[in-house]
Amino acid sequence: MLRASVAAGGLLMAGAAKAASPPIDAPPADDPWSKVLGPGVDDRPYGKPSRYEADAIRRYVPWLAQSTQADASFTPLQDQPGVITANGFFFERYHGGRTSVDPKEYRLMIDGMVDKPLLLTLDDIKRFPSVSRTYFLECPANGATEWPAAQENSLQFSHGLLGCAEWTGVLLSTLLNEAGVQKTGKWLLPEGGDAAHMTRSLPIEKCMDDCMVVWGQNGEALRPEQGYPIRLIVPGWEGNVMVKWLRRLHVGPGPWYTREETSEYTELLPSGKALAFTLVNEAKSVITFPCPEKPFTQGPGFYEIRGIAWSGRGKIKHVDVSFDGGINFTRAQLQEPILTKCLTRFTIPFHWDGKPLMLQSRTTDETGYTQPTIAQKRKSYGSKPVYFNNSIQTWQVLADGSVNNVQLS
Amino acid sequence: MLRASVAAGGLLMAGAAKAASPPIDAPPADDPWSKVLGPGVDDRPYGKPSRYEADAIRRYVPWLAQSTQADASFTPLQDQPGVITANGFFFERYHGGRTSVDPKEYRLMIDGMVDKPLLLTLDDIKRFPSVSRTYFLECPANGATEWPAAQENSLQFSHGLLGCAEWTGVLLSTLLNEAGVQKTGKWLLPEGGDAAHMTRSLPIEKCMDDCMVVWGQNGEALRPEQGYPIRLIVPGWEGNVMVKWLRRLHVGPGPWYTREETSEYTELLPSGKALAFTLVNEAKSVITFPCPEKPFTQGPGFYEIRGIAWSGRGKIKHVDVSFDGGINFTRAQLQEPILTKCLTRFTIPFHWDGKPLMLQSRTTDETGYTQPTIAQKRKSYGSKPVYFNNSIQTWQVLADGSVNNVQLS
Repeated sequence: MLRASVAAGGLLMAGAAKAASPPIDAPPADDPWSKVLGPGVDDRPYGKPSRYEADAIRRYVPWLAQSTQADASFTPLQDQPGVITANGFFFERYHGGRTSVDPKEYRLMIDGMVDKPLLLTLDDIKRFPSVSRTYFLECPANGATEWPAAQENSLQFSHGLLGCAEWTGVLLSTLLNEAGVQKTGKWLLPEGGDAAHMTRSLPIEKCMDDCMVVWGQNGEALRPEQGYPIRLIVPGWEGNVMVKWLRRLHVGPGPWYTREETSEYTELLPSGKALAFTLVNEAKSVITFPCPEKPFTQGPGFYEIRGIAWSGRGKIKHVDVSFDGGINFTRAQLQEPILTKCLTRFTIPFHWDGKPLMLQSRTTDETGYTQPTIAQKRKSYGSKPVYFNNSIQTWQVLADGSVNNVQLS
Repeated sequence: MLRASVAAGGLLMAGAAKAASPPIDAPPADDPWSKVLGPGVDDRPYGKPSRYEADAIRRYVPWLAQSTQADASFTPLQDQPGVITANGFFFERYHGGRTSVDPKEYRLMIDGMVDKPLLLTLDDIKRFPSVSRTYFLECPANGATEWPAAQENSLQFSHGLLGCAEWTGVLLSTLLNEAGVQKTGKWLLPEGGDAAHMTRSLPIEKCMDDCMVVWGQNGEALRPEQGYPIRLIVPGWEGNVMVKWLRRLHVGPGPWYTREETSEYTELLPSGKALAFTLVNEAKSVITFPCPEKPFTQGPGFYEIRGIAWSGRGKIKHVDVSFDGGINFTRAQLQEPILTKCLTRFTIPFHWDGKPLMLQSRTTDETGYTQPTIAQKRKSYGSKPVYFNNSIQTWQVLADGSVNNVQLS
């Protein structure tokens, strides 16, 4: 379908002709920027974005929290071209603000039910056998504001508690094997070095599987807001367990039922029972173009619909796109390589005739699990849920090309 | 071998014990940073590195060029943990300084031997079917200062005209098909919008293969120093052809023999003939830890040797590491996924007994080509070569753990 669109030619001729104010046989505009020398290599030892990209930033919702130091900012997914999230864009979630740890004074303690308790410096940690792997990281409250209704007309606020990065560090299993986990040690309590001393309980099986203790993110040291110098990565699980400014790994016989896994990050169901330790981020997807922030601006004609899909259970198997609010679906094309527990980019070519649309994407992961509608999710989640909203997103496209966040009943 | 090292336990106990100044059964240091709240989500809408990472920056060689506006800065590879190069680190190469293009005024012209000349706005370009792919980008002068001798005691200066990124954009073939290349059109001249109006000739076969016209790099818009808003990516070929601030794609019958492919970016051989249009970056590798900037700092014991390998002809097949200056080699472990024309990370576990070493890495790509020694390269490159130095690098490790850039005859 993609090839057919291109081979047919004339893909954008209407739009292109409109833009061609100078005659086509002349060079492009007599650009002022080509008449002067720009700054040299001594100007920016560490680079930064173009001044024309000042709108591509993290944002927060002022009414969401009482303090910006116990709050979240959102990734501008509308400005993310691929699956890597720029470190400058990567969402923040603080419980005690952005902690500044001196790497020279940093220590990681491994204790509890282990044969040899360890106290490691940053240099010690970096000496162990290391791996680099690309995983998404999503807050389980991503989509929280969408539970009651589509509250913010924005991709950034509806899905921006999400990022994806190449992480470099040591497998958690390597450190735990070094300490020697005893047979009675069945759970691990990672503890953060921030003022909140974030703690979460993790079953030892997951810790010995694919978890990482990382110092590198997307080609450089972790940023302070991501836990510099060391954070925990728990691939595919809710972001809250990926403890930042990691200071301690305590091995014990069972979960600790900390504040963050009892009062918070659980969901009280209508039955009176609470969902606790529901740690995996289920399969989810969203269309990133068009979206409320990036509408169709050039009238009817060819556009490529673009989006991202991810699953905490493994690889994305396929993504289907609907233009009519979920009645009909068309299979999208997935960008290779498709990696486990990583964002996967999808695209689908589309000739827009200028009529209103109800755009949706729906993904299925390699386990066969398919992303549900919000109506399906609501059936079991009671009246005021907060977490675990992985439902299908609907973007309403109007005849003028503008895009709205809507919910279909 | 890796598993054996870990399973054996006690990997770092000597180092760890030395670092453990507080008793092991107490929590880590009474960190001052956990006693105060840090800044909140309103503090940095666009993030930046930790203040403790101020040494991880691009650098340039003051004596290399007469002007910093026609010069290069080098990627701090010693601070790059994985295969992605942080946009803030990505090396610069200017012929007219860092050009600042207004995206609203930007135009790309496609003309010459085409059926339909095109003049495209940035919005036009972004409407075409797009792809995201991760490729390395290397200046053919990377290693130039190493031809006569090991002149700079530095990984950054010996190998830092190199970066790797996830690029997002449209395939060049899509744009050329839209314009309709005529049968007589056999070469393409991309032209830059900088003051130097950089131009290079490319055979149409490569243009129709895997070249990209990109607007996205590592999760955000291209940085100004990388050609914002649009640059050309020519996977695996010398960086000079990946024209930045791309303003024109002119199709013609043969190469243009521009300044940058005659006076520059060619190599005069002892025979009197010149190597011109030698466009592919041949297979190369280098050890990034240890290196002159990152020596062994904790005395004898376990270390992981780390490095990167790449080939302009495809995928890396294997990397071998020598500890004795090339007499004996041991196969290194490669980090998956191994992507074509992309950096591949390799590691090898090593117990250092404290004796001096001559460390080397040597890669072989999927075509069977093996990275040569500098002596082998010199045989055919005359007395004062500049380009195409892909030879094996030697790091001399002394008993005190320090590392020097040396050359073996």
